[in-house]
Amino acid sequence: MASYHRPDVKTSQELKDIANKLRILSIQATNASNSGHPTSCCSMAEIMSVLFFKTMRYRLDAPRDPSSDRLILSKGHAAPILYAAWAAAGLFPEKELLNLRKIDNDLEGHPTPRLNFVDVATGSLGQGLSCAAGMAYTGKYFDKASYRVFCIIGDGESAEGSIWEALSFAGHYKLDNLVAIFDINRLGQSEPTAFQHQMDIYKTRLDSFGFNTYVIDGHDVESLCKAFSDGANVRNKPTAVICKTYKGKGLAGIEDAENWHGKPLGDKAAAAIEALEKQMVSKGPWKLAPQRPEKEDAPPVDLSNIRLSEPPNYKLGDKVATRLAYGTALAKLGTNNSRVVAMDGDTKNSTFSDKFKKAHPDRFIECFIAEQNLVGVAIGCGCRGRTVPFASTFAAFFTRAFDQLRMGAISQANIKCAGSHAGISIGEDGPSQMALEDLAMFRTIPGCVVFYPSDAVSCERACELAANYKGIVFIRTSRPNTAVIYPNNENFEIGMSKVVLKSGDDKALLIGAGITLHEALSAAETLKKSNINVRVLDIFCLKPLDQKTIVSNAKECGGRIVVVEDHYPEGGIGDAVSSAVAQERNIVVKHLAVRGIPRSGPSAALLSMFGIDAEHIVKAVHEVLKL
Amino acid sequence: MASYHRPDVKTSQELKDIANKLRILSIQATNASNSGHPTSCCSMAEIMSVLFFKTMRYRLDAPRDPSSDRLILSKGHAAPILYAAWAAAGLFPEKELLNLRKIDNDLEGHPTPRLNFVDVATGSLGQGLSCAAGMAYTGKYFDKASYRVFCIIGDGESAEGSIWEALSFAGHYKLDNLVAIFDINRLGQSEPTAFQHQMDIYKTRLDSFGFNTYVIDGHDVESLCKAFSDGANVRNKPTAVICKTYKGKGLAGIEDAENWHGKPLGDKAAAAIEALEKQMVSKGPWKLAPQRPEKEDAPPVDLSNIRLSEPPNYKLGDKVATRLAYGTALAKLGTNNSRVVAMDGDTKNSTFSDKFKKAHPDRFIECFIAEQNLVGVAIGCGCRGRTVPFASTFAAFFTRAFDQLRMGAISQANIKCAGSHAGISIGEDGPSQMALEDLAMFRTIPGCVVFYPSDAVSCERACELAANYKGIVFIRTSRPNTAVIYPNNENFEIGMSKVVLKSGDDKALLIGAGITLHEALSAAETLKKSNINVRVLDIFCLKPLDQKTIVSNAKECGGRIVVVEDHYPEGGIGDAVSSAVAQERNIVVKHLAVRGIPRSGPSAALLSMFGIDAEHIVKAVHEVLKL
Repeated sequence: MASYHRPDVKTSQELKDIANKLRILSIQATNASNSGHPTSCCSMAEIMSVLFFKTMRYRLDAPRDPSSDRLILSKGHAAPILYAAWAAAGLFPEKELLNLRKIDNDLEGHPTPRLNFVDVATGSLGQGLSCAAGMAYTGKYFDKASYRVFCIIGDGESAEGSIWEALSFAGHYKLDNLVAIFDINRLGQSEPTAFQHQMDIYKTRLDSFGFNTYVIDGHDVESLCKAFSDGANVRNKPTAVICKTYKGKGLAGIEDAENWHGKPLGDKAAAAIEALEKQMVSKGPWKLAPQRPEKEDAPPVDLSNIRLSEPPNYKLGDKVATRLAYGTALAKLGTNNSRVVAMDGDTKNSTFSDKFKKAHPDRFIECFIAEQNLVGVAIGCGCRGRTVPFASTFAAFFTRAFDQLRMGAISQANIKCAGSHAGISIGEDGPSQMALEDLAMFRTIPGCVVFYPSDAVSCERACELAANYKGIVFIRTSRPNTAVIYPNNENFEIGMSKVVLKSGDDKALLIGAGITLHEALSAAETLKKSNINVRVLDIFCLKPLDQKTIVSNAKECGGRIVVVEDHYPEGGIGDAVSSAVAQERNIVVKHLAVRGIPRSGPSAALLSMFGIDAEHIVKAVHEVLKL
Repeated sequence: MASYHRPDVKTSQELKDIANKLRILSIQATNASNSGHPTSCCSMAEIMSVLFFKTMRYRLDAPRDPSSDRLILSKGHAAPILYAAWAAAGLFPEKELLNLRKIDNDLEGHPTPRLNFVDVATGSLGQGLSCAAGMAYTGKYFDKASYRVFCIIGDGESAEGSIWEALSFAGHYKLDNLVAIFDINRLGQSEPTAFQHQMDIYKTRLDSFGFNTYVIDGHDVESLCKAFSDGANVRNKPTAVICKTYKGKGLAGIEDAENWHGKPLGDKAAAAIEALEKQMVSKGPWKLAPQRPEKEDAPPVDLSNIRLSEPPNYKLGDKVATRLAYGTALAKLGTNNSRVVAMDGDTKNSTFSDKFKKAHPDRFIECFIAEQNLVGVAIGCGCRGRTVPFASTFAAFFTRAFDQLRMGAISQANIKCAGSHAGISIGEDGPSQMALEDLAMFRTIPGCVVFYPSDAVSCERACELAANYKGIVFIRTSRPNTAVIYPNNENFEIGMSKVVLKSGDDKALLIGAGITLHEALSAAETLKKSNINVRVLDIFCLKPLDQKTIVSNAKECGGRIVVVEDHYPEGGIGDAVSSAVAQERNIVVKHLAVRGIPRSGPSAALLSMFGIDAEHIVKAVHEVLKL
């Protein structure tokens, strides 16, 4: 066990000087941009100087190096001091900081991975620790490497439940490579935080969540050095360093004062900088410099060309729930590639991610009932291309993590979300368990691929496509058993829809997915008996949408479309199709969806009650023929 | 201070007998429905018998009575025993329980306010306590009444961060009329919970969150009576009763066993019921009966006809941000009606809800940075028509509470959500702070009214309309100052859009809202110089949408629409308009929206970069003229 080496006087002084230098750079940057949060930077200046010049092991020549320590700035509004620290460490010239928040510069108001030293975007508060926990879990259990993960959390954002989900997760999984640093600077945006400087409240809470905790003066560099060092030697517990700090520390008249959140110093900057400089023994260059990782022990990883270890193996007409096919596919992907990992929120026996757990127990993470953290952990696991994470729960419960998903897009996250129990077809459990807005949600996520498979074959292929797409993917699965309609060797692609029924004389194009595709096929049979041929299209991939196939088929069907979906009317398949044909004159869309709040009841009865079964589709076709 | 009266032997025995009766009823109901969660009911049978027959004060003749104690079953999947308790108390016949989960019965799989004894829907886990905290806050600070609020929380769901947000809130605001009952039955859905029966972990966590805690045997009726009684005498702290229980308690071979989550007993039911009956001294009728409230001390409330205390007071052309107008309107509504209340998530100086706080400090609740709890507290405050709550934060951060909003609709919640900082027009803070999916989110909520005002006058009127609508309302406000375009006496209605520019020879209909309406007006001026007249429509209310006005005006403009919105392309105004005209041949829609992830920069530069400024609208009009 390494013992703590107290920094010598010179080192301590340099760490203090660097802290003040970082304050000055933060003040200058935010003054140049005339916006930003210099006071939130100043409270954490010593934390940053110690991390960058004493504690962390990292490579300036490769900021995403897999063996380097990681730093997540959960309080993303303190971005200027993160940028200042990297500049002071030597990654880029300090004068670049004056381009903060400019439209042609990646030094944005809050950090994003457009910068090569940022792993995840932050700025929506309370999210960084889940990502850090995912990275630490990956480091400890998948990479089995020695890098540490540091996360700086503001006291204001520690009110977010997602922080407590992440803390509980980190404690439970004994993530001793994780260091949560709390910058307790007493002041929120609009008033003091709930607990101000009551450090004992933070300590007892963090103790109770399974952390090894230190309460220190966050402006004392020696205390910081000691806490980070001591924490490295504690096994089987994550460390929390709870720092008592002052917002605007070092700025006369501003330090610890209200009404200074998110305000540049303006004409007070010059005097403040002068005062800070007076406290510095040296303005640099300093003897202290970034230290490289002691070991390059993160293993190489290959995420290319991930395949189902065996092709789908069904017979046409077999009745298989797509959620079950998801579990089957996931296990196969895990067999093919050892960096496919999975996590769930205590629904694994419903989403069937338990099939993956059975096949690959060491790569399954039970996240318990905490969906924000589930998604955050997945994002963390996927960072820097270390794994391909598949996160699953009921589709409805991904709404819990909408903000994490939104930020995930900004983070350039590579995660796969599988949501089961789509729509009213789940039956008796009732509306709280029915996903009816999930398609709308995932459609809004920039770059997100949205699959909605209708049978087991296409579901397995959706999973395979998802594993190889670099970005966020949503796979919507259904609870009921539905017929296999594709041969095992059918080809599927991102952005592809499939015409599954067609004649030379189609009067309308029916568009469905999941349970409603089967209802549409049944409606087509009924209509055929009245000599009305209709074409049926399986949407398969809702985003990106196969606009070309939809428009061309619609035109071949008299410009008449009937969309039927097990989803609320807004933002789902109907809206997507209507928008896809919006620039075409002479195409009309009739839209069947779940209008109103559903209720408990048998699946088939609900499909009828809410007007999305075969019978209602037949009626809709008759109506659309009049348009 | 009342002292604890230990129940006599007969009372204790009756409470035990009733608990077993509730078990039997739960088994019978779930067997009849062939679905449901009898084992999750059995762990809390004694809790329910003590609450309904010893502790709670309530009226069977008026389950929503404002002075009665409240019970929120956060672990909503245990609905059968909630229904059984009300039946055993006498609200409806026990045989009605056999209609559990039937499509024509309101005894659904999870509780909803379709039942007159349910205040909020539960079933998405971890949400009940926020609502209960809102009700308790209302009881203590607004009603100043003596009713208590009980909330039963499962151990599995206690992993949800929203629970910890609510706990922290309750502790901070000293809600001594709140009792959080934790049913620690050790088993989750798919495996044991993280902490199983480590009661000390729950106790230290709850102690640290400011609760008065009791760890008891949750199957011991005397301990339950004592804890509930003792808790009533503790001032300035909420109480947590942490009950060690067993899932499936009392069912031989099932008690404390895995793989029994969500499964009716089927052919094991008869033997189980027989064994339970054998333990009962009496099968009833019992001497114990529901006890009415001691005091009817909740004041009468009138929420009708809430008005702005003064009309809007602007001059045409004044530059006023709609977020500021929101604050102004909110303060006026509070002046007019003493039951208008407001809450915020530490953004009140940005959303301008601080104007309400200044005018009505006793009716403002600072919820700190915890948006799930913010929305949950609002839902709780609005229950049973006690208040009209307005909750505000950045619109982007309402995504944090999507699941609460989704459940809010099922809860028939009456809350008003005001989201500021819409879209890229906020500028330098960057994408994490920009709401670009909020319209899509709120549009999916059944019955939700979505306002997107473009000037201060319409924003004030939107707030007034919101206060009088019984349901969820979203008001999207913008950060920049924009010109006042309506006279102070202009009339607005829910579901109304406004034509703000019109000629007899319009070639296209421009549709915008917020910042983009002003860009559209500017584009119209430019186009006029080229002798192209366009009509401009202010969407004002996005849901319900003024389909009739849109279709008729589009037809008068050559069937050409250009939608421009500060939102991602999916699920917002463009999708809504495309769907609204989808059944019309000969109307085309061109859609300008924020395509791709934005970045930091000046507002005007971003509008240009992402193609939603006047210049791009002019170009789009030229293009749409060719369609």
